Amino acid sequence: MKLPEMSDAEVLLQHSELMEYYRRKLARWERQQRHYSDAAAAANLSLPQQPATFDPEASWLKFHLGINRYALYTRDDPGIARLLQDMRSSVIISADYTQDEKALKGVCDCSQVVKPSGHHLKLALKFKDFGKSMFKPMRQERNEQTPEDVFYFVDFQRHNAEIAAFHLDRVLDFRRVPPVIGRLVNVSGEILHVTRNEELKSVFFTSPANNTCFFAKCLYVCKTEYAVCGHPDLLEGSMSAYLPGLSIAPRISIPNPWIRSYTFTGKEEWEVNPFYCDTIRRLYPYNSGNRLLNIIDMAIFDFLTGNMDRHHYEIFTKFGDAGFLLHFDNARGFGRHSHDELSILAPLTQCCTIKRSTLLRLHLLTRPDLRLSEVMRESLDGDPLRPVLTEPHLLALDRRLEKILRAVQRCVRKLGERQVVVADFVEVPDDPATRSPQPPLPPEPRSR
Amino acid sequence: MKLPEMSDAEVLLQHSELMEYYRRKLARWERQQRHYSDAAAAANLSLPQQPATFDPEASWLKFHLGINRYALYTRDDPGIARLLQDMRSSVIISADYTQDEKALKGVCDCSQVVKPSGHHLKLALKFKDFGKSMFKPMRQERNEQTPEDVFYFVDFQRHNAEIAAFHLDRVLDFRRVPPVIGRLVNVSGEILHVTRNEELKSVFFTSPANNTCFFAKCLYVCKTEYAVCGHPDLLEGSMSAYLPGLSIAPRISIPNPWIRSYTFTGKEEWEVNPFYCDTIRRLYPYNSGNRLLNIIDMAIFDFLTGNMDRHHYEIFTKFGDAGFLLHFDNARGFGRHSHDELSILAPLTQCCTIKRSTLLRLHLLTRPDLRLSEVMRESLDGDPLRPVLTEPHLLALDRRLEKILRAVQRCVRKLGERQVVVADFVEVPDDPATRSPQPPLPPEPRSR
Repeated sequence: MKLPEMSDAEVLLQHSELMEYYRRKLARWERQQRHYSDAAAAANLSLPQQPATFDPEASWLKFHLGINRYALYTRDDPGIARLLQDMRSSVIISADYTQDEKALKGVCDCSQVVKPSGHHLKLALKFKDFGKSMFKPMRQERNEQTPEDVFYFVDFQRHNAEIAAFHLDRVLDFRRVPPVIGRLVNVSGEILHVTRNEELKSVFFTSPANNTCFFAKCLYVCKTEYAVCGHPDLLEGSMSAYLPGLSIAPRISIPNPWIRSYTFTGKEEWEVNPFYCDTIRRLYPYNSGNRLLNIIDMAIFDFLTGNMDRHHYEIFTKFGDAGFLLHFDNARGFGRHSHDELSILAPLTQCCTIKRSTLLRLHLLTRPDLRLSEVMRESLDGDPLRPVLTEPHLLALDRRLEKILRAVQRCVRKLGERQVVVADFVEVPDDPATRSPQPPLPPEPRSR
Repeated sequence: MKLPEMSDAEVLLQHSELMEYYRRKLARWERQQRHYSDAAAAANLSLPQQPATFDPEASWLKFHLGINRYALYTRDDPGIARLLQDMRSSVIISADYTQDEKALKGVCDCSQVVKPSGHHLKLALKFKDFGKSMFKPMRQERNEQTPEDVFYFVDFQRHNAEIAAFHLDRVLDFRRVPPVIGRLVNVSGEILHVTRNEELKSVFFTSPANNTCFFAKCLYVCKTEYAVCGHPDLLEGSMSAYLPGLSIAPRISIPNPWIRSYTFTGKEEWEVNPFYCDTIRRLYPYNSGNRLLNIIDMAIFDFLTGNMDRHHYEIFTKFGDAGFLLHFDNARGFGRHSHDELSILAPLTQCCTIKRSTLLRLHLLTRPDLRLSEVMRESLDGDPLRPVLTEPHLLALDRRLEKILRAVQRCVRKLGERQVVVADFVEVPDDPATRSPQPPLPPEPRSR
């Protein structure tokens, strides 16, 4: 559907606000650079110059300005292709740990079941025009499957899953995943030589095969088996576009109601209580608007990729409860093509509801000329790291799509199409007292 | 060569001494069992009975009694086949961490480059007749090669390397590796249910695929990716015969003069000084007797398997400097069939000397009817876990053998056969003043 021109309230950022932010950031960077240069000159060292440039036409700016309350970008936005190309080929002027990595301050609590962030070796890379990408290096060959004995919460993050998830989200017309493209990064020239972070420098080493490698800092030296290595310097990875900084576009992180137990044996309520959705439906913010439907969209997306690790989701605070859910951190998808993890679909199978627009799109992708695997194969073929997914992973998408549609069918047989297939773009009134635009739910479980 | 009857000084253990030791151990075990039974009865629990039996004909006893100053067993000892069979099929009555694991007391110093012992998940298993084996579980598929970027000191231990090394050592007529056989162990029934060690019990868990697994205790819960799993309970592993206890047959552990630097960048003297052997040759105990020749035998053995991790070697103190070197802990061999690590041969190439008996044996194993790969294939075919080695590993043995013989040839061309090929069984007189049966080395480097 074609949307009308958007009001200021519907877009995430105003142009002036973002430009001001950009200038401020750039000024700080230039001060830091002068500081380094002076220190280097005093020590009689020559320092490589890494000039950043102010570019009001930068593709990342256009991306940030295009984010609105419906999606991260519009269906026909030509800027996305430009952003992808820039992330693929722009000069990298700086490399650093990500903010969540820094927040750990090098502490690794191994009594926690979930792996510390540093394990994944992801890095924040900055471009000449001040665009930023999250780099996740290749950890696993494309034809390797996650061993069946591995718990989802200790699984590797896969760079190709990150890329494929962006394409899938776009194919599904959700547009809730920030753009991702593959890139061969030179770990010496584009990371080691441009970082000012001494800690990051200290984790680089040369492997017995003379490749340049770096390892997870918090696991430290006895864990070189956790290292990633270039060949001898080039390393495959995914480049995910950064969202606007939290200071100008705050987001909140909300626990997924269908969160899993991050222990060996624990079970969450949704795994044992078939009427779990009736409880959730009565609770704010799932008792009105699109939120529950959005959760179900996300479950469908995660079921298709096989990602079991969706413990939280994020939304932009600006759009309130009506905002869409961001589908980022998808690197634990595409681990096993030979297995369909039906529990990921629990929000759909337990709530028996789905957006009409989502269902129409899913049906479309079963048509012989528009088969999901085929559309994905074509879409992924544009990535520099093609083939991003092996054939079995592509074919698994078709099989999983069938399973989603069968689950919807079962719901329709039980409750009728009117109850199950729901129109979206329900407007949420600002007055909390009238938040529920549909009649209140009857108290009996499963009676909708 | 046929050896004459051996004197008491030439055999490691006297019959009466070993029997006395066996009875003492068994009595202690039975006291402990009564203690457990009483405690269980008081708590109204039924405890599985694990009766041990005294068997003066036990194959492990025969093995221990046969150890002499020349080798761990004689060429035609029929007891070795019996011992292997017993390790393969005897009832396991107890499982525990090994002594070196216990010595760590659960502490894992990750600032050390070398992995803590517990990482390898090896266990001590006890049989009904009180024989003992070291169990090393399968960690890597036979067709997987160690990635070239992995440092040797963080490489996995491979159960099949342990098995193959025993066969190779026997084929080379060294007989310095304690017998090893493969076994499918039921990790529930033969480890979890028979161990009294609460810590060991606590590391067992059920994987997402419903297999029984256990993980390295010192790496704890966030490291379930280090776990090994049965299918659902059966797990491949190697069973290595224990040597007699240190209280009746003390051994000492001596740093290998050709030890490697266990750091990312360090180099040891032998790696940079081509005249290193001349220094070693002047130092006790390498300045007389067989010791240096034994080191070279070990280097040949390790080069064939590709094991770079021989940091120490052990000898029985009873036989003094004349004793043979034990070749155990071979699980880091057979990691990469496509690479020959010539640095392992440094003792041979730098010292340019080899035992005549070793050289004859190596030559024999190049004959078309006795090709090393062929003899090994046949020997390994007797193991329950056949094929123990993949074909590329077997073929690598022939290629490496050629390289050893070429290294000897180069020495002979340079120094003459008399200087290079040395008769073994050089007697070491007890008087240290006359320790050097050969003329003292001239001070000039490389002048022999």
